[in-house]
Amino acid sequence: MPQLTILIALYPGVTHLDFTGPHQVLVRTPDARVVTASLGGCDIEAEGLVFAGLADLATVAACDVLLVPGGLGCADAMLDEAFMAQIRRLGSSARYVTSVCTGSLILGAAGFLTGRRAACHWAWRDLLEPFGAIVSDARVERDGNIFTGGGVTAGIDFGFALLAELAGEDHARAVQLGLEYEPDPPFRSGRPEIASAQTVEAVRRRMDPIVVARLAAAEQAARRLREQTTIG
Amino acid sequence: MPQLTILIALYPGVTHLDFTGPHQVLVRTPDARVVTASLGGCDIEAEGLVFAGLADLATVAACDVLLVPGGLGCADAMLDEAFMAQIRRLGSSARYVTSVCTGSLILGAAGFLTGRRAACHWAWRDLLEPFGAIVSDARVERDGNIFTGGGVTAGIDFGFALLAELAGEDHARAVQLGLEYEPDPPFRSGRPEIASAQTVEAVRRRMDPIVVARLAAAEQAARRLREQTTIG
Repeated sequence: MPQLTILIALYPGVTHLDFTGPHQVLVRTPDARVVTASLGGCDIEAEGLVFAGLADLATVAACDVLLVPGGLGCADAMLDEAFMAQIRRLGSSARYVTSVCTGSLILGAAGFLTGRRAACHWAWRDLLEPFGAIVSDARVERDGNIFTGGGVTAGIDFGFALLAELAGEDHARAVQLGLEYEPDPPFRSGRPEIASAQTVEAVRRRMDPIVVARLAAAEQAARRLREQTTIG
Repeated sequence: MPQLTILIALYPGVTHLDFTGPHQVLVRTPDARVVTASLGGCDIEAEGLVFAGLADLATVAACDVLLVPGGLGCADAMLDEAFMAQIRRLGSSARYVTSVCTGSLILGAAGFLTGRRAACHWAWRDLLEPFGAIVSDARVERDGNIFTGGGVTAGIDFGFALLAELAGEDHARAVQLGLEYEPDPPFRSGRPEIASAQTVEAVRRRMDPIVVARLAAAEQAARRLREQTTIG
C-alpha cells in the first residue's frame, strides 16, 4: 500500500511541463502514489496535449503533498471559487504545500503564503506581493513545508529537491541518473539577468497583453483572501 | 495555415517526459502544428498520466519532423510491424527524423540510422550498434537531418536545438527565457561519468531485469531490418 499521496491539481490553461517534469521525477518516490486531478475529473487540454483519466479533486480525501502547477489559466483558476475551495481544503491538511511557476500565485490566493518566501516565474513574481508572500528569485525555494519552483522548467529541479526530502538524497541521485538529468542548454538565455536585452524585450512584448488582466486577477484574489481572513 | 507539421509518435510504455519536454518547446515553433499520434489514435498511458485525443498514425499523410520518444515500451514497439510500418512511412518523407532517449533504437530498427551518428539513453547506447549506427555519447547529436537526444531530460536540450534549426536562434532564445530554462540541478548525478559508483550500481541493478530482453529485441529487429534491406 502506498504510504504517501502526492496530488497534482490541474485546471484549464495549465502549462503541461510545469507538472509533467516533476511528475516524471516524483512518480519514482518509493511507497507513494501520484494522483492527477481536476474539478469534476474533467479532461485538461494543454497546448494540444489532452490529459484524461483524472481524479475528481472533490473526491480526493486528503494528500500528503499538494502540487499546483502554473500556466496562463492561473488567473482564472485563482478566481474560481470551486477550484480554490479544493486547493484550500487539500492544502490545509497536506504535509507539504508546493507549486511550480505561477502555481505559487494560486497558493498565495489560497492563503498559504502569508509571510512565507516563495518563488514564481520571473515575469510574474511581483504578483506574489498582494498575497503577503516574500518574493524569492530562487529557482527552488523552500520555506518550512512550502516548496515553490520558478518558471516551467524549474519544475524538474523542484522535483528533485522534493524527492530528496521525501525519499532521501541517495534515492534522488539514482533517479537523476536514470533520467539522465545533466542538462546542457544549447544557449544561455533562461533568465532575464543572462538573456540579451533584445530577448528580454521580445518576451516582455509577448506577455504585455496579459499583464493588466493578471494583475487585476491577483488583486481581486488578494481582496477575497483578506475578506475571508477577516471573516474567519 | 501552419507550414510545418511536427509529428510525435507515441506507443504503449513511452516515457512521457521524453516527449512532453520537447513538445513544450516545439509547440512554440512559428507556423507549425505539433501532432501527437498513436496506432489507431488509442489513448496512451504513461506511468499514470493518460494522453487522449491522439491522431491515428495511419491517417497522418506526411510530416516535416518525425519525433520518436523512448521508454520501456521501445522493445515491443520496434517489433510491432504495424507501428514500424508507420514510422518507416512517415520518416521516409520527413525533412527531419528525430528521437529522444531510446527512441533512437526505434529509428535504428526502421533503418534510418545506418552509418549515421546517433545518441540514446546512456544505459542503452550499445543497442544502436546492431542497426549499423555510430554510437554517440552527446546529449544532443546531429548528423545531417537526423537529430537524436540522450536520455529522457535530454529531450529539452534536443527541443531547443531543433527549435533553433526550424525557427532560428533568436526565437529559440526567446522561448528559452519564456520557459525559464536555466537549469540548476540540486545534485550532480545525471551521467554515469559524474555519478558515484554506488549510484551507478543502484541504477544498473534496477535495469538488469530488462537488459537481456531488450538486447534480444534489438537483435531481432536488426535481423528483420537486414532481411528487408536484402529483399528491397
